[in-house]
Amino acid sequence: MTSFADGAAPGQLSWQGTYVEVPAGQEKLGRGLVMAGIYGTDLDAHEGNYTQLSPLSFLLRTRDVYPHRPSVVHGERRYTWAQTYERCVRLASALANRGIGRGDTVAVLAANIPEMFESHFGVPMCGAVLNAINIRLDAATIAFILQHGEARVLMVDKEFGPVAREALANLSVDILVVGIDDETCEVGEVIGELSYETLLGEGSSDWAWSLPEDEWDAITLNYTSGTTGNPKGVVYHHRGAYLNAVSNAITWDMGKHPVYLWTLPMFHCNGWCFPWTLAVNAGTSVCLRQVRDDAVFDAIASEGVTHFCGAPVVLNMLLAADTSLREQITHQVKVMTAGAAPPAAVIEGMEAMGMEVTHVYGLTETYGPVTLCEWQGDLWDGESAAERANLKARQGVRGQMLEGLMVADPDTLEPVPRDGRSMGEVCMRGNNVMSGYLKNFRATQEVFEGGWFHSGDLAVWHEDGYIQIKDRSKDIIISGGENISSIEVEDALFRHPGVLEAAVVAKTDEKWGETPCAFVTLRTGSEVSGSDIVEYCQKHLARFKVPRYVVFGDLPKTSTGKVQKYVLRERAEAL
Amino acid sequence: MTSFADGAAPGQLSWQGTYVEVPAGQEKLGRGLVMAGIYGTDLDAHEGNYTQLSPLSFLLRTRDVYPHRPSVVHGERRYTWAQTYERCVRLASALANRGIGRGDTVAVLAANIPEMFESHFGVPMCGAVLNAINIRLDAATIAFILQHGEARVLMVDKEFGPVAREALANLSVDILVVGIDDETCEVGEVIGELSYETLLGEGSSDWAWSLPEDEWDAITLNYTSGTTGNPKGVVYHHRGAYLNAVSNAITWDMGKHPVYLWTLPMFHCNGWCFPWTLAVNAGTSVCLRQVRDDAVFDAIASEGVTHFCGAPVVLNMLLAADTSLREQITHQVKVMTAGAAPPAAVIEGMEAMGMEVTHVYGLTETYGPVTLCEWQGDLWDGESAAERANLKARQGVRGQMLEGLMVADPDTLEPVPRDGRSMGEVCMRGNNVMSGYLKNFRATQEVFEGGWFHSGDLAVWHEDGYIQIKDRSKDIIISGGENISSIEVEDALFRHPGVLEAAVVAKTDEKWGETPCAFVTLRTGSEVSGSDIVEYCQKHLARFKVPRYVVFGDLPKTSTGKVQKYVLRERAEAL
Repeated sequence: MTSFADGAAPGQLSWQGTYVEVPAGQEKLGRGLVMAGIYGTDLDAHEGNYTQLSPLSFLLRTRDVYPHRPSVVHGERRYTWAQTYERCVRLASALANRGIGRGDTVAVLAANIPEMFESHFGVPMCGAVLNAINIRLDAATIAFILQHGEARVLMVDKEFGPVAREALANLSVDILVVGIDDETCEVGEVIGELSYETLLGEGSSDWAWSLPEDEWDAITLNYTSGTTGNPKGVVYHHRGAYLNAVSNAITWDMGKHPVYLWTLPMFHCNGWCFPWTLAVNAGTSVCLRQVRDDAVFDAIASEGVTHFCGAPVVLNMLLAADTSLREQITHQVKVMTAGAAPPAAVIEGMEAMGMEVTHVYGLTETYGPVTLCEWQGDLWDGESAAERANLKARQGVRGQMLEGLMVADPDTLEPVPRDGRSMGEVCMRGNNVMSGYLKNFRATQEVFEGGWFHSGDLAVWHEDGYIQIKDRSKDIIISGGENISSIEVEDALFRHPGVLEAAVVAKTDEKWGETPCAFVTLRTGSEVSGSDIVEYCQKHLARFKVPRYVVFGDLPKTSTGKVQKYVLRERAEAL
Repeated sequence: MTSFADGAAPGQLSWQGTYVEVPAGQEKLGRGLVMAGIYGTDLDAHEGNYTQLSPLSFLLRTRDVYPHRPSVVHGERRYTWAQTYERCVRLASALANRGIGRGDTVAVLAANIPEMFESHFGVPMCGAVLNAINIRLDAATIAFILQHGEARVLMVDKEFGPVAREALANLSVDILVVGIDDETCEVGEVIGELSYETLLGEGSSDWAWSLPEDEWDAITLNYTSGTTGNPKGVVYHHRGAYLNAVSNAITWDMGKHPVYLWTLPMFHCNGWCFPWTLAVNAGTSVCLRQVRDDAVFDAIASEGVTHFCGAPVVLNMLLAADTSLREQITHQVKVMTAGAAPPAAVIEGMEAMGMEVTHVYGLTETYGPVTLCEWQGDLWDGESAAERANLKARQGVRGQMLEGLMVADPDTLEPVPRDGRSMGEVCMRGNNVMSGYLKNFRATQEVFEGGWFHSGDLAVWHEDGYIQIKDRSKDIIISGGENISSIEVEDALFRHPGVLEAAVVAKTDEKWGETPCAFVTLRTGSEVSGSDIVEYCQKHLARFKVPRYVVFGDLPKTSTGKVQKYVLRERAEAL
């Protein structure tokens, strides 16, 4: 194992390597098999020629090569890579001092602030696993996640102090609560035993941290609403995080020193692995507590932002902004979008503003985006604007580091014809597909049935090899980029004493992409109004999950008694 | 294991995966260790989430995504990625039909032609190991390499038919000889049992090839003259080739679809891994049989070349070319150079021609370049042209995928102070350092002493973390980008009946960078002239290894009888 330690001087690194003596034919580090014959003899892996893949290596390298360059900008706060590195080592060291180590979970509930960025390195540097929790969740779900993930530490941004306090009240475990006080936050309350800065103060900047013992070691845990009521914990490992971080840099041609605006929440698939990508290419993170149009345009103009990511709902917001805001942008900006196919008008509008849109697709289970709509310039540049937007609305092809992508019959795994018409399920495989769901072997087995990850998304495969998603086989509603499990909403409805039956489907929404629409059958004699239902849900669900439409009546069913959701979807669209 | 097979239609891929059922806690594919606790249970590697890293994946992906784009251009011959992929599968299939498989060596003696490019994929696709042999070597050395590497196949470019025939005459092994007939070659002779095209005809384009069983499997074998007389066989594996291919794309910011001119021989560290890099970014290889100034400029202008690599001797040649040739270039071209520090005049001259020079450094043992002189624009752009050239002449910092780089005392491995004055040996570690030397455990152990690869190059470490090579601890002369072992030249001299003692050192040469200079003590009474010595060497050494200077006299020695090479180097420079 290799340890890294250094003193206060940036740029100074001393190695504390131990030589692994490798006798012939023994000690197969990180390998299961060995080649036969002359190439299988005396050519073993050891410290000199084998290093566990981890995105932590990129942090060390960028600190070494570009110590003075800006790493993170947040309002008045500005850090260099030397400073960010030091803060990460201090965090790791302080956590280790408090007994946190390999395989322990450290949860964070925070907006896109420097402490959230630092956690992506500092937590795994001590061997622990980072669990970034969705800040939009209700207290009960946060409590479930803390309990299920067995978090030993929770670091809480001031803004989310109140909801965290409520979640912790429901918890029966011992957990160290660290409060993050951020000068840009004017609401909420700092909670916890000690502050983040006090914790850093307990740590040492010359603490000898280590790469993971194994690149398969877990690095983060991300809860997804998935298809069932309870969130599932998606586990990422160091190898996958390393590769997907590099994949972002390559598929998007980011170049050196991008200035990246944090419109995409870091609690979504670890910001699609971009904290680690920005360590690959020595970029600058521009933090953003709230995604408001003025804040976004101001940051792009004043910090010279070159790249950002966001769901089409974010792009829509920018398009609808005041001309005075939009006119601030005089340089080219690249935008990566996912979560729903960007409508043609959005693509055209963004490009008219000088923003180049790349459409990507992925899931929490795939470390974020793993496909992209690669632009075939020589074939497509001559098409009409409408046709170009149509081409770009497709989810596309696999990125360099996804090893397999197909649209197939989910049972036989037979690929569908590439005719643009036959439907099948999108399936993936490769090193940037999750290890599995934490403490949920059954769900893991099911989703990997046949040796492929089953995305639950239904798509067609075009003749040119590009996939296009048409529907979801799982009952998920994506509203404003957030996944909502229709089953979770149905469960809440079922708990209402007046409700006999309920079914929830997605309804297309101009602003949010989709929004939940509830169909409810009441018990005989009960007198409940739509606003009663909404009010009830507001008490039991995160705000963004509450149905915006409630329709009363009988539910259409199949002969075997299953609710015909496709009929409800049609009805919802007709409302 | 995953197999890939497809029919004739480009873009069509059918998967033949077999599901690896993973019982809890078993079958740790590709891993030596498992995390403890909740993250070590039921989160195993299997076909869905673990793929062996191999650059062959990039070929498949680029064939899938860009089947129609140009892959290889050579005179009148033009291939698309669909065609190159098909030719590679045919090659792999034909080799497999003839019994070649995992761990077998397939040697190639060829210029930078399409067949050489295809070999970088087709040979490992059947599990075999590619051994690209330096075309400038003499028959005896080629014979040694074929014998030592246990090559079962030798594919020979027409130009090198005669020397291969001579080498094979000295061989006692059974080897299949395949002749490559190239219409651009007007010399030499096609030899062998069958032609390359006939071999491809034996293969099938829908043969099911496989990724390596293990990413540590050998992919290529590259002989280096090293420090001793006999060449040493450097073994690369799939994991390292994958990572260094990606590293090239990232460190050089190549973007999508570069047009790459093959001035750098593919037999040098597999063209610094660029055949695989061009599969990562779907680039075009422009082949070049001979590196002549007119051919280089013509290709850059007519094919729109964007990138090429070469030793400073190549850059010098281009600078000295006729104005009419140089004036053809109207677009920006990026050049990567290594092998010797590029003189300031060369950097300035190239940049005046619109060519951006990136200075890199590496060895055969490190898959080619692993350090680069990263440009610190914000700090250096304002410097004078001379100072900028000085800064760029340094070998720089590690690329993203080299895990460790230091200048250290070779015995204690204590890093030297970063003062720009203290000398130490350049040491590296990481996944892009070779597995070891084939069938040479002693040399492997020695060069990895202490868990670091010892480069043999002596350098200083500057305060800003950049290394600069000052001398070589090993007796290597680099002439025109080729390594010459001084010991090998000395051995040839010693065999001359009139020679009593001999020592060979590098002498700085304006054209070649360095050239061998021989100091010879004759036996008493023997009457031998300098031209006799040169003539004798021409019979026993490759042309580029023949000393260009021969000096007669006693050799300066230490008290223990060792030749004082530093004294000879001073004398050589004074000639």
